[in-house]
Amino acid sequence: MAGIALGRFDDSFSLGSIKAYLAEFISTLLFVFAGVGSAIAYGKLTSDAALDPAGLVAIAVCHGFALFVAVSVGANISGGHVNPAVTFGLALGGQITVITGILYWIAQLLGSIVACLLLKFVTGGLATPIHSVAAGVGVIEGVVFEIVITFALVYTVYATAADPKKGSLGTIAPIAIGFIVGANILAAGPFSGGSMNPARSFGPAVVSGDFHDNWIYWVGPLIGGGLAGLIYGNVFIHSEHAPLVNEF
Amino acid sequence: MAGIALGRFDDSFSLGSIKAYLAEFISTLLFVFAGVGSAIAYGKLTSDAALDPAGLVAIAVCHGFALFVAVSVGANISGGHVNPAVTFGLALGGQITVITGILYWIAQLLGSIVACLLLKFVTGGLATPIHSVAAGVGVIEGVVFEIVITFALVYTVYATAADPKKGSLGTIAPIAIGFIVGANILAAGPFSGGSMNPARSFGPAVVSGDFHDNWIYWVGPLIGGGLAGLIYGNVFIHSEHAPLVNEF
Amino acid sequence: MAGIALGRFDDSFSLGSIKAYLAEFISTLLFVFAGVGSAIAYGKLTSDAALDPAGLVAIAVCHGFALFVAVSVGANISGGHVNPAVTFGLALGGQITVITGILYWIAQLLGSIVACLLLKFVTGGLATPIHSVAAGVGVIEGVVFEIVITFALVYTVYATAADPKKGSLGTIAPIAIGFIVGANILAAGPFSGGSMNPARSFGPAVVSGDFHDNWIYWVGPLIGGGLAGLIYGNVFIHSEHAPLVNEF
Amino acid sequence: MAGIALGRFDDSFSLGSIKAYLAEFISTLLFVFAGVGSAIAYGKLTSDAALDPAGLVAIAVCHGFALFVAVSVGANISGGHVNPAVTFGLALGGQITVITGILYWIAQLLGSIVACLLLKFVTGGLATPIHSVAAGVGVIEGVVFEIVITFALVYTVYATAADPKKGSLGTIAPIAIGFIVGANILAAGPFSGGSMNPARSFGPAVVSGDFHDNWIYWVGPLIGGGLAGLIYGNVFIHSEHAPLVNEF
Repeated sequence: MAGIALGRFDDSFSLGSIKAYLAEFISTLLFVFAGVGSAIAYGKLTSDAALDPAGLVAIAVCHGFALFVAVSVGANISGGHVNPAVTFGLALGGQITVITGILYWIAQLLGSIVACLLLKFVTGGLATPIHSVAAGVGVIEGVVFEIVITFALVYTVYATAADPKKGSLGTIAPIAIGFIVGANILAAGPFSGGSMNPARSFGPAVVSGDFHDNWIYWVGPLIGGGLAGLIYGNVFIHSEHAPLVNEF
Repeated sequence: MAGIALGRFDDSFSLGSIKAYLAEFISTLLFVFAGVGSAIAYGKLTSDAALDPAGLVAIAVCHGFALFVAVSVGANISGGHVNPAVTFGLALGGQITVITGILYWIAQLLGSIVACLLLKFVTGGLATPIHSVAAGVGVIEGVVFEIVITFALVYTVYATAADPKKGSLGTIAPIAIGFIVGANILAAGPFSGGSMNPARSFGPAVVSGDFHDNWIYWVGPLIGGGLAGLIYGNVFIHSEHAPLVNEF
Repeated sequence: MAGIALGRFDDSFSLGSIKAYLAEFISTLLFVFAGVGSAIAYGKLTSDAALDPAGLVAIAVCHGFALFVAVSVGANISGGHVNPAVTFGLALGGQITVITGILYWIAQLLGSIVACLLLKFVTGGLATPIHSVAAGVGVIEGVVFEIVITFALVYTVYATAADPKKGSLGTIAPIAIGFIVGANILAAGPFSGGSMNPARSFGPAVVSGDFHDNWIYWVGPLIGGGLAGLIYGNVFIHSEHAPLVNEF
Repeated sequence: MAGIALGRFDDSFSLGSIKAYLAEFISTLLFVFAGVGSAIAYGKLTSDAALDPAGLVAIAVCHGFALFVAVSVGANISGGHVNPAVTFGLALGGQITVITGILYWIAQLLGSIVACLLLKFVTGGLATPIHSVAAGVGVIEGVVFEIVITFALVYTVYATAADPKKGSLGTIAPIAIGFIVGANILAAGPFSGGSMNPARSFGPAVVSGDFHDNWIYWVGPLIGGGLAGLIYGNVFIHSEHAPLVNEF
């Protein structure tokens, strides 16, 4: 498959599968290291001032660029999910088995935790900022915000990586996935934080020991990603084609 | 067609057509949610300060990235218009029938309205900023500004999606469409607002109940988009080829 | 040729040639409208404050995005030069005849002038900012700055559009051309202004009636573009192949 | 090879090899000129103020865009390494001979020095900013920061340029390489500076005569790049395929 490989493995413990878990671990590590790093960098530059528009641009562009890369480098090995909500959305659509999906989740979460531990060290022990809803934003609003933007992300994964007419979509998919995350952070950053990704939120919570609001970044993204998988899979994909299968 | 499918349907009410309307609805929803969301986010971060250059970058980059995604995810289903002015420009060039075009418009406008309703909810009821000409800018200037920049947008749609020599243009088209909108907002933002899209302007007007200046964002984009369709279609495309037809 | 068509016409006055001049006119118009517009927008937002880093990002990103689009939309018709220095560099390498090159120049200069006239109107008569060397920067430094950055631009045009192995370079070329201009403006903006393009500088000079320093933006870009054409054409391209010829 | 050519030459002194060294020299020159230029430009605009988020965006975007271009323009001639750490990582993986690698290094270092000399001239003698760890950041932290981010860069080079299934990766590779550097600078900029490239750091050190901390930008990138080459080459690439060889 010339586009993004979305991963179905006959054997969740084959050599190919273990390479896929390692690829998810490394891709998520690189993405979270840059993304969380950009948030720490903002604090360093501004002596922990409140976020301003230039800082929001820095963080959004960093996440968009880094996710593009993380998806691209994993595409041909693991499918480049880098996100439990993407894996969940694809599992709901029947594109990946449950057991493989669980092992993907573990790889993604470990990658995020290791990224945050590394950041803790290289920044000389600076605090790791966690995702939480902003002052004045309710948790329900936060959950719905994450539902909508994760729906957009997983819908994008399906629409750009699922095209059976290969062609140029192998380039479009990772760009679109990176850019929708960048765009959504520019909208959601000052409200829910704009996670769309339980792994992105979980690592900082573990390393900082602060799980305040962390559930929001599981519930919202999994509902949004699941909805996208169900809707896209049932409306736009003919089930007999199953074009999302990793055929390489 | 490997590039962007620009939509001609034998039957405006076929199953394929209904999927196309749904795709336009979802694409426009995702685009407007991020785009208008970035404008609300700026107000949140700055306590509704006047727009500054960093905020303009944030809003322009968000619209550019989100439109790239909206076009890409709709490309193979509806053609990814996401914009009544694009649909109008293609109808004038004979690339889409009038009845299908009207149903596209309805889908686009509904997508924008739903996006703004969702934003109202997830931001805890914050005001939805509308497009209007800036203080000191006349309505004629605003209309002409929107004519020029929408001409640029629809000319770009024709030039990048209409090439009969398929090749790599399937990647170029959505990038070019996203980037011309991003660039034009960086120029027009402080004057007309830089809409280029009646749907993008209509949703916020409906949800805020403020239709002040809204006509500008119908008249300007439709004239600009129509001119681009007429000029490009008559000068650069041989009518016997009709390369814009959706052939997949 | 699947990549960027670089234009050689048997007849400078054929129908195809006239379409090419019109395409250069429109592409340059759209590029200059957005680019100069972003500079005016900065002045509008800041009450004509001195340029700051956020404003430099806005202007550089606008030029990069808009040039990508201008090159892409012209690629299959005129080759998408959008710049007398590019046309000159290609003429020196024997890729376009002198007479056709002169007509390209006229189209480019007219496009820039019309763009600035339109901006004058739609901004309600605001001043059109011209390129000039910054306070404390000598004219020799300004010329050499423009030589180096235009060398980079035209070298990029040759290297990405001249590859005889077609493949994916049709996408790479316009992105690279847009991004090198964006990057170079981020470096040169506060010194020479970062023109790399006599047409980009000429329109504002004509409309504002201020030709102060304008010669710098002819001499620098033409020397830099010419050097790139000579070096690339003689070192990296085998003359017997002439891969830059527009063969479609 | 349709993707990025990663360079193995039968003869390190053949005509093709000499063209490759020249291409590395020019690509590195263009990259360092824009990148270091953007840092000087920030100082010029702000009267040498401490870096702020908007300035970090300007510098990161400039490096990302310019590296994309430098890799793209060199891809078909030298492989577009533009970085001794990339060359080292590829040599460790057996993709380039030691003698050719050394000559690549010399070309890259000379390109960086010439770029900084040119910048010294065109800015009227302004100081050339060097890479060094920020106040409050230890050298060990700086080295580890550079190890992690250079690992990400060279891992990206392998993953996007090494795919034996050609397809669209010829476009993905340079974008991913540029974007990972842009993203990593947004994270590392306020700590280690975010070099990932001994040549990028060496030129400013030579021209300013200040080698303070310069060893960090050799040790960190070479360890990080070497690790990426070893891990990717041994885990993800079957040695019998050797897909990284430049076969065109």
